[in-house]
Amino acid sequence: METQSDHIVRSYDEQLRRVRDMLARMGGLAERQVNDATVALVRRDAALAAEVIGRDAALDQLEREIEAFCIRILATRQPMAIDLRFIVAAMKVAHNLERIGDYARNAAKRSIVVGQQPILGSLNGFSRMARLVQENLKAAIDALVNDDAEAAARVWGNDEPVDDVYNGIFREMLTFMMEDPRNITAATHLLFIAKNLERIGDHATNIAETVHYAVRGDSLPDERPKADSSAYAVVRPPE
Amino acid sequence: METQSDHIVRSYDEQLRRVRDMLARMGGLAERQVNDATVALVRRDAALAAEVIGRDAALDQLEREIEAFCIRILATRQPMAIDLRFIVAAMKVAHNLERIGDYARNAAKRSIVVGQQPILGSLNGFSRMARLVQENLKAAIDALVNDDAEAAARVWGNDEPVDDVYNGIFREMLTFMMEDPRNITAATHLLFIAKNLERIGDHATNIAETVHYAVRGDSLPDERPKADSSAYAVVRPPE
Repeated sequence: METQSDHIVRSYDEQLRRVRDMLARMGGLAERQVNDATVALVRRDAALAAEVIGRDAALDQLEREIEAFCIRILATRQPMAIDLRFIVAAMKVAHNLERIGDYARNAAKRSIVVGQQPILGSLNGFSRMARLVQENLKAAIDALVNDDAEAAARVWGNDEPVDDVYNGIFREMLTFMMEDPRNITAATHLLFIAKNLERIGDHATNIAETVHYAVRGDSLPDERPKADSSAYAVVRPPE
Repeated sequence: METQSDHIVRSYDEQLRRVRDMLARMGGLAERQVNDATVALVRRDAALAAEVIGRDAALDQLEREIEAFCIRILATRQPMAIDLRFIVAAMKVAHNLERIGDYARNAAKRSIVVGQQPILGSLNGFSRMARLVQENLKAAIDALVNDDAEAAARVWGNDEPVDDVYNGIFREMLTFMMEDPRNITAATHLLFIAKNLERIGDHATNIAETVHYAVRGDSLPDERPKADSSAYAVVRPPE
């Protein structure tokens, strides 16, 4: 026999499931933006870059919808314990995904300028970096959808290869600049694109951290292994 | 006569006031970090830069405390309407301030490298940018503490001068690089420091937007006036 209380509980579960679905959709779109921005860069495809720029508004809109829906759940359901942590986490993750979208859009903008400049090397590092951050992003969103704290902890510890590729690109770009001043505009934009990808990787890590907290209620260690040494990098011009 | 209910309400108000106090303290510390990171850069003061780097953990800790306290209020008080919006806004603003701290720390790290490289110009643009973003940050936090939606809207529309200075620095640094390859390391780090300051300005704007929403319950327009044209900038080497 179905009681009014069953009905309310089921509808509440449905609301929580809907939040998960919205986040999964937003995560998929964010992944696609990261992928397409990088493909636009590597293939010098300004039309694809323009598509990425145009699609970013959808991520902004999804963030607003998720936040508004979460606030409604807070106001009407007064969730407790794990549900409350999940709702707070959902708003944080939506914000991370919106930021990832901004970085992808910025990379796409810069790729248009890079495409009009001399070609600097293979840009393989960028494809590799994009693939790594997309994998982490996908794994983090899967961990969220499946309430999987262990998977989240694995993503959290998996940022180092991204930082390694980033540090390599940083030095490579400075070397291109020193070789020929005509490389400077492209190399500068490529540096910022690499930084965008690195920040996207950080956001994937942050999502994993948030998911772990939401499921377990306790935090991962204060400092994750972090290998971005580029802030201290010095590259010397050729003699 | 004091009733139990009066007591609970007063204690709830005290909790909300405590959130405001914590955010004001965090905002003050974030402002100081931005100021000191810039002073460390302009004066080539590595000891001050190291202080900024060391102090960043305090902002991380404050964010965690504010979030934990807000979640406790959500769980125990079930705030409604404006109070609920305020609590959600408080968590978002704490996150913005933590990010501002990260950018200040990163700028401080890079300032140490810049201080070991040839001097590039006066760095007046950096001082000006830092002053503008600090003013916006202070005004945004004041708007939060005073529930002042109009003041928040003013901050929100006030980001353009920051972007103008940033765009000027971007071109100036590329020109330094093109003049002499020995400038490239310093100019690259200075570009990223300028970007850090520009992002700090964005976060001040975001805080203002969040405050406006918390007080009024409706959003500011989708796109604020945004003049960062550096993503499309092309600078040519001297003939």
